Amino acid sequence: MKDSLDALISIIHERKSVRSFKDGDKAIPKEVLETIVKAAFAAPSAINLQPWHFIVIDEHTILNALNDALPYAKMLHKASAAIIVCGDTQVSELYWDVDCAAATQNILLVAEAFGLGAVWTAVYPSDERVFFVQKLLRLPDNIIPLNVVPIGYPANINKPKNKYDPQKIHTNGW
Amino acid sequence: MKDSLDALISIIHERKSVRSFKDGDKAIPKEVLETIVKAAFAAPSAINLQPWHFIVIDEHTILNALNDALPYAKMLHKASAAIIVCGDTQVSELYWDVDCAAATQNILLVAEAFGLGAVWTAVYPSDERVFFVQKLLRLPDNIIPLNVVPIGYPANINKPKNKYDPQKIHTNGW
Repeated sequence: MKDSLDALISIIHERKSVRSFKDGDKAIPKEVLETIVKAAFAAPSAINLQPWHFIVIDEHTILNALNDALPYAKMLHKASAAIIVCGDTQVSELYWDVDCAAATQNILLVAEAFGLGAVWTAVYPSDERVFFVQKLLRLPDNIIPLNVVPIGYPANINKPKNKYDPQKIHTNGW
Repeated sequence: MKDSLDALISIIHERKSVRSFKDGDKAIPKEVLETIVKAAFAAPSAINLQPWHFIVIDEHTILNALNDALPYAKMLHKASAAIIVCGDTQVSELYWDVDCAAATQNILLVAEAFGLGAVWTAVYPSDERVFFVQKLLRLPDNIIPLNVVPIGYPANINKPKNKYDPQKIHTNGW
């Protein structure tokens, strides 16, 4: 148990947002993408409604179209793939976004553990970005893309930020 | 790397919501709670705003008061501690909740890796629950509790659900 714990802690603290990729033409093996997406399903969800859908993108024409339209996803043209985490508002109107956020964190951790680079780029709650992605990918109206997570081979060695701030820990009240 | 990856995947899939605790009087070691909370800070956040605060509760009078007021947190009277994940809406109005959700997922994974039980019980977006927790813990108006995560010693052996559903994976479009 100690070894697993240490491995988890280390991956959590090593995870960083990677925004520069190389070898975009080099595909990410299908079973790697599958392992990453499977981890997303293991997140918790309110009342166990599991309101998520995952759109895996490995066609470069689509990665490029997303790259051109999404202001914070300008690394997609060099990514090997992307996962778009979507929530079904008909399944869970109140909690789809936080449930999908927990699922996204699993995606980011597993990508890190594979030595891949990934970054959460926000789509929701920008109406403009939501509509663009819905239209491009033919999503039903009730399927809202929370984010696009480009995944690729890191171009550089990236160091995680140390964001620990003891002033944000409060004991038994503010 | 393979070992770390396997350990991570295994913890992600072993994590489950634990709602029955024993030995609530037995404290969780301070350094264990600290390791759990530190992992939360390593989550990503939109524009790196880190809008989170973490309230660690280890006083049973407070755990009991939360237990009595929160309909989905009726395991708090047997928990050893709780972490309340809060977002600062003045720091990140649009993204505080999903950032705090990613941080919560780190908390849940590390608790699992320690062999502890934990469960996400929702506070936000219920106004009634938000106001109650704000008042009890003297939170400023801009500090919104997303959830209460009771943490304790599992009373039973809990099995994770298999929630994998290949129909929710879509490739290159809906």
